[in-house]
Amino acid sequence: MSSAEATVNNQSALESLRWNGQQLDLLDQRLLPEEIVYLPLETPVEVWEAIRHLKVRGAPAIGIAAAYGVYLGIRGVDGGVDALLAEVQKQADYLATSRPTAVNLFWALDRMRARAVALAAEGVSPAAFQAALLAEAQQIQAEDVETNRLIGEHALALFEDGFGVLTHCNAGGLATAKYGTALAPFYLAKEKGLNIKVFADETRPVLQGARLTAFELQQAGVDVTLICDNMAGAVMAKGWVQAVIVGTDRVAANGDVANKIGTYSVAVLAKAHGIPFYVACPLSTIDLNTPTGGDIPIEERHEDEITQGFGKRTAPEGVKVFNPAFDVTPNEYVTAIITEKGIVQAPYTENLRKLFE
Amino acid sequence: MSSAEATVNNQSALESLRWNGQQLDLLDQRLLPEEIVYLPLETPVEVWEAIRHLKVRGAPAIGIAAAYGVYLGIRGVDGGVDALLAEVQKQADYLATSRPTAVNLFWALDRMRARAVALAAEGVSPAAFQAALLAEAQQIQAEDVETNRLIGEHALALFEDGFGVLTHCNAGGLATAKYGTALAPFYLAKEKGLNIKVFADETRPVLQGARLTAFELQQAGVDVTLICDNMAGAVMAKGWVQAVIVGTDRVAANGDVANKIGTYSVAVLAKAHGIPFYVACPLSTIDLNTPTGGDIPIEERHEDEITQGFGKRTAPEGVKVFNPAFDVTPNEYVTAIITEKGIVQAPYTENLRKLFE
Repeated sequence: MSSAEATVNNQSALESLRWNGQQLDLLDQRLLPEEIVYLPLETPVEVWEAIRHLKVRGAPAIGIAAAYGVYLGIRGVDGGVDALLAEVQKQADYLATSRPTAVNLFWALDRMRARAVALAAEGVSPAAFQAALLAEAQQIQAEDVETNRLIGEHALALFEDGFGVLTHCNAGGLATAKYGTALAPFYLAKEKGLNIKVFADETRPVLQGARLTAFELQQAGVDVTLICDNMAGAVMAKGWVQAVIVGTDRVAANGDVANKIGTYSVAVLAKAHGIPFYVACPLSTIDLNTPTGGDIPIEERHEDEITQGFGKRTAPEGVKVFNPAFDVTPNEYVTAIITEKGIVQAPYTENLRKLFE
Repeated sequence: MSSAEATVNNQSALESLRWNGQQLDLLDQRLLPEEIVYLPLETPVEVWEAIRHLKVRGAPAIGIAAAYGVYLGIRGVDGGVDALLAEVQKQADYLATSRPTAVNLFWALDRMRARAVALAAEGVSPAAFQAALLAEAQQIQAEDVETNRLIGEHALALFEDGFGVLTHCNAGGLATAKYGTALAPFYLAKEKGLNIKVFADETRPVLQGARLTAFELQQAGVDVTLICDNMAGAVMAKGWVQAVIVGTDRVAANGDVANKIGTYSVAVLAKAHGIPFYVACPLSTIDLNTPTGGDIPIEERHEDEITQGFGKRTAPEGVKVFNPAFDVTPNEYVTAIITEKGIVQAPYTENLRKLFE
């Protein structure tokens, strides 16, 4: 399927990714909002590149794409189950190098590995092994939809009709299989006829808020207003914001939250204005093996994202740039973490652990 | 002089504006950092357009340009001094409509008006009247250079060798006749061999920090690192910032400060991190006739600055946008206001008034 053939215009097709029976069709999010193009991914290398170059982004969507990537790596392999299992391990190791921060990536790959080990132990045929790993990737995707709906319902219970809610980056349907995490309550509010006014930070340097959040909420008929990141404080000072909700790439065991750069600034501003700061995520984003936010590796990205992010140079040649992709919001700024299993509040070390018991 | 002829490459020519004997040559700041082009302005309409469309920006530079604009409006006028005086009033009224927030604009125009009234009262000839108003505009420009040098010296006394200092927008040489206000201490530190590490917020939507501050400091050999606005909190959390210094478009009588959108967020972040927040400005930016920040009109600008500010559409068509050009930082966030007459601290209502006694 060529990119031209893959271009679609109807709203219902706006899934971040879909398995079409032969390959993973992945929405190229770098082209949004101007072009809706699905890329046909047929190999782990193509999946790795798509993750690395932000064609797919959002912790849950990255995890799902990587899971399909593992399957794509074994479907053409001849040989016994031992060879297939070795290939699963190899491809999972490789796909894990595509982005360093998103724990869902590792979670999904580990789940694929575990399934492969179990299948090998069961003594299934090579064909059954391959089919079962495709089914596992599809199951991860299906569970994500249900998870996000539950997150949305829990989050919406914290909002009132008429609330203004600010969000940063894109933890929406485009970041997941459907609904999103932080944006899920907005979709559910729309379904229930509640009036929530969303403020979307544009989220420099890559503008996921402008290109993705504003886009997908507008498509869904949600009341969304786009602002520059540096306007968040001014909007809060006007009394227009009653809550902040964001997604996350990784929650540490103590409740520290890694998310898109700028999230920490929003959290500090929210606290200064007495506005609750909520983090929405599936359990797969919570990493009890990471003690604190200080243990989360923070990816630094290329300076071009800041100096010529949209095809035109906007900063002088050779200027020094600092471009961290994420920051860490310490747990004391986090009012609550909203998961599919309910709402967690401080003390996080204790209460996050209980989620997994 | 055509734009092509006006293009220059050497650093010493980087003045924001200069009177060339026949017209005002104005550096088109919208083209920076890629092109250095001086526009020949020959009429008040051209000056008005240059101010309105941000070809010249920065409160002091706007005031100086407007002062020359008044002179350009009378230099070709035949008639007596009464006719010239009436034209001064008319052109000053007109030029005052170019931007609503910058008080220096009104200050400079009032100074031109007052000089015109005094000249008329003195009974000078029409030619002397015209020459004296040109001299007044030149005097405003010359005083600005001296004022900024004094501001820089006062500000530098607050910094120590090795400090990291964050600034927002551009209150630099490009915003003034020379040195700038908030950037003046960096130029003086460079002259004295002190090591100050500057962090420049890129300052969406118009990117004055990326295009102008990073550019002019880099040209001068100052150690400058460009960041996106939403990275300010993360940089502070790392302990890299020992002070914040910004310019301002208007200081109210109570010390509330209007400045480029995003300044308020930076001030709140600075306070949360125990970092002093300094405002640098000439006395002409302090408006005792404006009781509080709530009385300062905040210009809202076109949504295109946000949705297609990088030369390419980066947000969906038809999305709602909030685009205030300025915000107000309440006086409790302002550690000190640094003027040519020295450093002012709270209580501002009392201490700002003393400056003018």
